Amino acid sequence: MAIILFTDFGADDLYVGQVEAMLDRYAPGVRVIHLLHEAPPFNVRAAAHLLAALARGLTRGHVFLGVVDPGVGSERGAVVLRADGRWYVGPDNGLFAVVAARAPSKSVWRITGYPSGASASFHGRDVFAPMAAAVATDDFPNENAEAVADLTVHLDSGDLAEVIYIDHFGNAFTGLRAQDVPHARMLVANGREVPHARVFAEVAPGTTFWYENSSGLVEIAVNQGHAARELGLAVGTAVSWR
Amino acid sequence: MAIILFTDFGADDLYVGQVEAMLDRYAPGVRVIHLLHEAPPFNVRAAAHLLAALARGLTRGHVFLGVVDPGVGSERGAVVLRADGRWYVGPDNGLFAVVAARAPSKSVWRITGYPSGASASFHGRDVFAPMAAAVATDDFPNENAEAVADLTVHLDSGDLAEVIYIDHFGNAFTGLRAQDVPHARMLVANGREVPHARVFAEVAPGTTFWYENSSGLVEIAVNQGHAARELGLAVGTAVSWR
Amino acid sequence: MAIILFTDFGADDLYVGQVEAMLDRYAPGVRVIHLLHEAPPFNVRAAAHLLAALARGLTRGHVFLGVVDPGVGSERGAVVLRADGRWYVGPDNGLFAVVAARAPSKSVWRITGYPSGASASFHGRDVFAPMAAAVATDDFPNENAEAVADLTVHLDSGDLAEVIYIDHFGNAFTGLRAQDVPHARMLVANGREVPHARVFAEVAPGTTFWYENSSGLVEIAVNQGHAARELGLAVGTAVSWR
Repeated sequence: MAIILFTDFGADDLYVGQVEAMLDRYAPGVRVIHLLHEAPPFNVRAAAHLLAALARGLTRGHVFLGVVDPGVGSERGAVVLRADGRWYVGPDNGLFAVVAARAPSKSVWRITGYPSGASASFHGRDVFAPMAAAVATDDFPNENAEAVADLTVHLDSGDLAEVIYIDHFGNAFTGLRAQDVPHARMLVANGREVPHARVFAEVAPGTTFWYENSSGLVEIAVNQGHAARELGLAVGTAVSWR
Repeated sequence: MAIILFTDFGADDLYVGQVEAMLDRYAPGVRVIHLLHEAPPFNVRAAAHLLAALARGLTRGHVFLGVVDPGVGSERGAVVLRADGRWYVGPDNGLFAVVAARAPSKSVWRITGYPSGASASFHGRDVFAPMAAAVATDDFPNENAEAVADLTVHLDSGDLAEVIYIDHFGNAFTGLRAQDVPHARMLVANGREVPHARVFAEVAPGTTFWYENSSGLVEIAVNQGHAARELGLAVGTAVSWR
Repeated sequence: MAIILFTDFGADDLYVGQVEAMLDRYAPGVRVIHLLHEAPPFNVRAAAHLLAALARGLTRGHVFLGVVDPGVGSERGAVVLRADGRWYVGPDNGLFAVVAARAPSKSVWRITGYPSGASASFHGRDVFAPMAAAVATDDFPNENAEAVADLTVHLDSGDLAEVIYIDHFGNAFTGLRAQDVPHARMLVANGREVPHARVFAEVAPGTTFWYENSSGLVEIAVNQGHAARELGLAVGTAVSWR
């Protein structure tokens, strides 16, 4: 079991190391894996769909510490979710709502107490990291968690017909799951029709195509090119099937 | 005990992994935590204040490998400092001088010998990493270290009334400690008066405010905005209280 | 023994963590070191020279998982190489060809079987990571590897008279090994003659020079400046001795 981080803290910034130091304090032998620290900031819905796709691709048993949390310091709740054999610790603001909606069954705990001295602005370090460490070390549920019926913020289990992530190559992940989509379908993004290809190597350099990416999502790519720039895509751009 | 890295080597560049490989060689079981690799380059004083604030927020016992070192290859010394229950290994150029000045007591060793084959330009890998590994594995003091009375370069224990770091959200850390500052005070930066707020969620989107950040420093922020851009702040910008 | 990653996956992107999760699954106790995730994309030859220089600087015994792989999903092969006491797992596209050409002796295995469910686009995670984990845990050779006489794609053992990497300070690595180069020689890059200096601290701020960098390569630098910008250098720029 590892603790897997999914945040918008910035991979190069000084926040991630502080979280890892806190995890090392309370779960010293447990591996910490940095899955993503450039999750779409302030866009909980896109992040929720991305997290659901990525988590599904990893083996069961891990603890996800997820933070995309524009409301930190407000009255939004904090939760521990167990769904589909995986644990999730973070804000109760919708970030785990797609995972929860798609799980055959789930358990939810509200985080009721914060460690003394917890800052108002950095719950990732001061609230979620100690709780994720508790889960990873089998010290859960503890006195700071209370079983509840469900999450507070809900999203449905369906797809999101939008761009939800742009990778550093410029490839655009959508919130559409590719499984069962006929390859003959054309994807429309920004008025542009995009045909299917199986892999990059199947098309000529410069060609735009959609394909099922390694996370099971419909992705728009240009072989040896930058799809987001060439098609004018950003997180939030709507897509549709024709 | 972990080895905690604080450098200006660049988080995405090829230097950090070489340091970690050296640490793995001499301290194979010890966790390495990447606290910051984007410390203000060539600005030892700003880095010294930032390191002092961050180190204070972590539990005692860790070994900090700190490198902001424009004089590498010159005659500047190399040191091991023990202060306030923490260890620091790096250049004797002022980087640890704020930590030392604020510590109730301290011990200092000069690094007198370099491993054979050490490069002239990468002491982080060839000199400081083996020494940090020695400290972390209780092989210290060793034949390459000699107890001395004090650091060579000194800074005082007071605050630094400047911007010392800009995070990837655009929030500007100052070198002012927030503890005991009355919330009614206005902070002045670039001719702009900035009032206090407790947390981001307390002000409307677009509002500029100062607050005590999660490292105990006075920070200038804009809720859902980029403070550094909007106020024209950079590392080194002077700030004052009105 | 550690598993050392050298890829063009992007240090801040969501691919590296997925590779590390796969390594954790099959080699749970083994340290993973992130050497470089910003290797020159689509430039296998430059990456091959950079990898050869970096690997030589690390102790023997490690397993390198190397991926610069524009042809993923095509018919290019996949290999395990043992050369000079180190292991290499990745595409058989030339990435390991400089290492192989310079090794006094070597062993090569072709990867003949892929794990079921392996994606067509992310062999780093689905093919190379499980194989690197097998090597690191002494479960090699296994049923998915077959000894062969040599790599498929070859490069010679000589130097590459080009810029092969630009670091975040703007220093330009060349593919020239510095050992045995007389210091009196002038390096020519973009029509500009560049003299030698031993270290940064030896020249005035703003001065351009070449030196033997910490990986044994000829590097073009400007003291406290950005050499690539000031001389107009990019990966692929030709250099020569005068």
